[in-house]
Amino acid sequence: MELARRRGFIWPTSECYGAVAGFIDYGPLGAMMKRRIENIWRDFYVIQEGYYEIECPTIAQEAVFIASGHVAGFADKMCQCPHCREYLRADHVAEGGGIRNASTMKNEELSAVLASCKCLACEEVLGTVEVFQFNLMFRTMIGPGSQRTGYLRPETAQGMFVDFARLLRFYRDKLPFGAVQIGKSYRNEISPRQGMIRLREFTQAEAEIFVHPDEKNRHPSFRRYAEYRMPLLTSDQQLACGEAVSLSMREAVDKGVIANEYVAYYVALTHELMIAIGIKPERLRFRQHLPDELAHYANDCWDAEIFSQRFGWVETVGIADRTDYDLNAHAKQSGIPMTVFIQYKEPRKVPRRRIIPNMGVLGKQYRDKAKAIFAALATATPDSSGADVIVDGETIHIPPDLFEIRDEIVEVRGEEIVPHVIEPSYGIDRMCYAVLEQAYDEDEADGEKRIVMRFSPKVAPVQVAVFPLMSRDGLDTIAQEIAGKLQKKGILAEYDDSGAIGRRYRRQDEIGTPFAITVDYETKETQTVTVRDRDSMKQVRVFVQKVPEIVGALVEGSLRFAELE
Amino acid sequence: MELARRRGFIWPTSECYGAVAGFIDYGPLGAMMKRRIENIWRDFYVIQEGYYEIECPTIAQEAVFIASGHVAGFADKMCQCPHCREYLRADHVAEGGGIRNASTMKNEELSAVLASCKCLACEEVLGTVEVFQFNLMFRTMIGPGSQRTGYLRPETAQGMFVDFARLLRFYRDKLPFGAVQIGKSYRNEISPRQGMIRLREFTQAEAEIFVHPDEKNRHPSFRRYAEYRMPLLTSDQQLACGEAVSLSMREAVDKGVIANEYVAYYVALTHELMIAIGIKPERLRFRQHLPDELAHYANDCWDAEIFSQRFGWVETVGIADRTDYDLNAHAKQSGIPMTVFIQYKEPRKVPRRRIIPNMGVLGKQYRDKAKAIFAALATATPDSSGADVIVDGETIHIPPDLFEIRDEIVEVRGEEIVPHVIEPSYGIDRMCYAVLEQAYDEDEADGEKRIVMRFSPKVAPVQVAVFPLMSRDGLDTIAQEIAGKLQKKGILAEYDDSGAIGRRYRRQDEIGTPFAITVDYETKETQTVTVRDRDSMKQVRVFVQKVPEIVGALVEGSLRFAELE
Repeated sequence: MELARRRGFIWPTSECYGAVAGFIDYGPLGAMMKRRIENIWRDFYVIQEGYYEIECPTIAQEAVFIASGHVAGFADKMCQCPHCREYLRADHVAEGGGIRNASTMKNEELSAVLASCKCLACEEVLGTVEVFQFNLMFRTMIGPGSQRTGYLRPETAQGMFVDFARLLRFYRDKLPFGAVQIGKSYRNEISPRQGMIRLREFTQAEAEIFVHPDEKNRHPSFRRYAEYRMPLLTSDQQLACGEAVSLSMREAVDKGVIANEYVAYYVALTHELMIAIGIKPERLRFRQHLPDELAHYANDCWDAEIFSQRFGWVETVGIADRTDYDLNAHAKQSGIPMTVFIQYKEPRKVPRRRIIPNMGVLGKQYRDKAKAIFAALATATPDSSGADVIVDGETIHIPPDLFEIRDEIVEVRGEEIVPHVIEPSYGIDRMCYAVLEQAYDEDEADGEKRIVMRFSPKVAPVQVAVFPLMSRDGLDTIAQEIAGKLQKKGILAEYDDSGAIGRRYRRQDEIGTPFAITVDYETKETQTVTVRDRDSMKQVRVFVQKVPEIVGALVEGSLRFAELE
Repeated sequence: MELARRRGFIWPTSECYGAVAGFIDYGPLGAMMKRRIENIWRDFYVIQEGYYEIECPTIAQEAVFIASGHVAGFADKMCQCPHCREYLRADHVAEGGGIRNASTMKNEELSAVLASCKCLACEEVLGTVEVFQFNLMFRTMIGPGSQRTGYLRPETAQGMFVDFARLLRFYRDKLPFGAVQIGKSYRNEISPRQGMIRLREFTQAEAEIFVHPDEKNRHPSFRRYAEYRMPLLTSDQQLACGEAVSLSMREAVDKGVIANEYVAYYVALTHELMIAIGIKPERLRFRQHLPDELAHYANDCWDAEIFSQRFGWVETVGIADRTDYDLNAHAKQSGIPMTVFIQYKEPRKVPRRRIIPNMGVLGKQYRDKAKAIFAALATATPDSSGADVIVDGETIHIPPDLFEIRDEIVEVRGEEIVPHVIEPSYGIDRMCYAVLEQAYDEDEADGEKRIVMRFSPKVAPVQVAVFPLMSRDGLDTIAQEIAGKLQKKGILAEYDDSGAIGRRYRRQDEIGTPFAITVDYETKETQTVTVRDRDSMKQVRVFVQKVPEIVGALVEGSLRFAELE
């Protein structure tokens, strides 16, 4: 992290005023790397999967979060140290004090066990403390005079649910379809202490995929990942303290380990995506939620966890089958149905019983009540003695001769169904952290310790460095021209002519630039430059003219450096 | 806007709960278009100019906005209608009532003139109303127990100022350098009524360029725009009700119309950028701020204004010379100097007067005050009769024999200076609105009215449509293969096989897709497909094999459709 700070990846925010816990700045190199990771995510979800991105505001009105359950339930248990007045997460304090299952305890239970625990800040024994709920949403007021309560969204997902009707029309009323969002979300953590892992403002990339509930086992592109194999840590194995088992997605679905093809598909896609940004497979695992860990609305959920040397296994992605929970919740709160009309392949013949009142007699007999009785009869369950209907709270018996029962066969063209939602949800900052941590390496160069960030060329902020051996004799002009040509191709090339060449290589190694081009005196004679590989530190000569094409292929991954040697 | 809504460009936010004024959703096509516009902006500022992007949180602590002046001064004048209780912008109500210069009136003056004005909501005459300030920042609390006040940033700029020291080190302590940020900003408008023009949550793209104050007239790449010519509406011409004059940037700087090369450079760059996203030059003007309109810290400011048929001339970009105001303000608030050490080319010999007290005598004579006198003497201005120093509020005369004056010549290597800041600040949502409004067109096709969005291929959300004439006989397979190849090249291709071909063209015209490929029966025989141009509706046949290359060049702009004919 010291390197990340010094070289401009991650900075404490508004440092000159004393940084605020839970917020970070991405410096020039960090922001570039983050954008590359977001764009790789888009390659998978927008280009490969064809799910369009939308952009909803980060502030939303209260009704949205009443429906989603966040107003009532998105809270952590908190207590205040009576000695140092610090606010603490009650379950963390209890766990620190060796109490098991603290996270599932009720407020009163926690309060009881906390009495003998020590404050995490001042280390005094707490004694009597009250435990209360603290809602984790940032609250604000929209407009003057406290007109309307707004919250900073705790997840991007709700925007996609609320836009369901519009999205459905955009996708021409057909399932499945998906929408994605990459953007800021906010959680007002009680006392964030884990740097980039627990942020109060963070970036999520979420996809909400709307599927016919009966077709969750028929992902149209399942073939792509059917034979994709990886270790899965199922909930059964966790309960039995077992090891992860290696399964193909086909096997995982067939054995009922993963709930359905959709969840399996995105588990595999997530694995592929993590490898693409440079996560080492041995530091990546997929862990199924335990039954008591699973959100009440979810049917199955898998976390992609990345191993961190500082923080252990860190939950980085969640892939959940959220069923129809969200759409039902918003339909109920807004009063607007959130359904899709599914046309049957062929219209179905469905038996229907109609009750046809004898209006003439009914009207005469019941006068001003006749209309209400007429309506009530439509849903009545008559038997041979007639039908009982309730009108204005009064039960009225209608004899069988006042209506006719007609059993018909009607043609039904289709039905309204509430789609289920499959949600892969990625924590972009945690991905950035993992990439930074895993890229860090030290080795030796010219008999000295070398610090090198072994970024995949696809996420390295600077993609190639261009150096003149000396900044004179026209070498600098040639190098600048090469840098210009690379930039025109959309490659981020950094030109540097200051200091000894060895120091310049070292600086690029530290920021993880995968390749360096050097223009030397031979360049003027042979029209060649050296290309240096960051990891092997080997150099090969290539023609100046071919540099843009070769560097483009190296960065893209279609050419490996070893092939040049 | 109806089309924008129907086709998935812009949606009211959380519509199912009643949209909230001042917030919008970008739908699938709108979000894609917005991202393309942001990336064109990056091509100019990050790739061409070489200013790295950073990413700071949208929530910042109070100290940042105390320094920037937003806590004290970022407010609008507000009143409440005594009849309908609606909150109103006092100056807007007064202007609506025909009062001139309402925006520069004090609260009491406004209150007096409002008595006879009508409420903009209920249209009753207001009568006696109080006018008060309403701060436009969204306020929230960071952490539990109201620990710390935070605000949603009203501009991205402050993040770059606050990070000045880190940025300076990243750029290896050399001026000029720049940083940019694209992200959300927030203004809690009192009653936003202009759709996408006045939003409470909006996207800004801002560049902060740090320059040596003496070098503002030496932009290193000024050549690029020196001969760039465009109409400029100077403040003098506005005061004289004159017309804009066409000047080259060289002329504008030489005549003193634009304050310096830096401002002129970014005025021209902005013009080029606006044309690149598809703004018509005749609907674009650059207007200089009038002396009484200029912020107190700015030295010159030019607005790029775009003409809207609905809203008139809309301020979309501001290019300001903010001088050293911001860095001084943060240095003062934080106590941390925000300066750059500028080394002279050669060390300078500078005369310096040193006052050397006679410590022995001073100590004896003044005892415990001697130390303070010693310190005070260092900055005293002695004359032949001695020096007066102030110690603890008491003036003490020190006779000339108690100190010695030594005039020396010292060598100074350089000096600390506070850089000036040039800030081009873009409203991305207003750019999107202008692009949408200007692209809308109607003409005739096959004797019927045709709606067409004439987007530049660079900003069109869908870049090419691929149709099989019929979705059978293998035409669909060929078309899908073509679409796949285009996507691999990073081109957004939409495959569509439903409905009559004419209707499919019409739909793509409505969403502004510039080109459409159709696979027909001839394709199987001649290996050619048709490419249709949205604007001319002309079609040419090209070889299937060449489609990716041709479409790539058409979208990029390196090939014009007419050249294919």
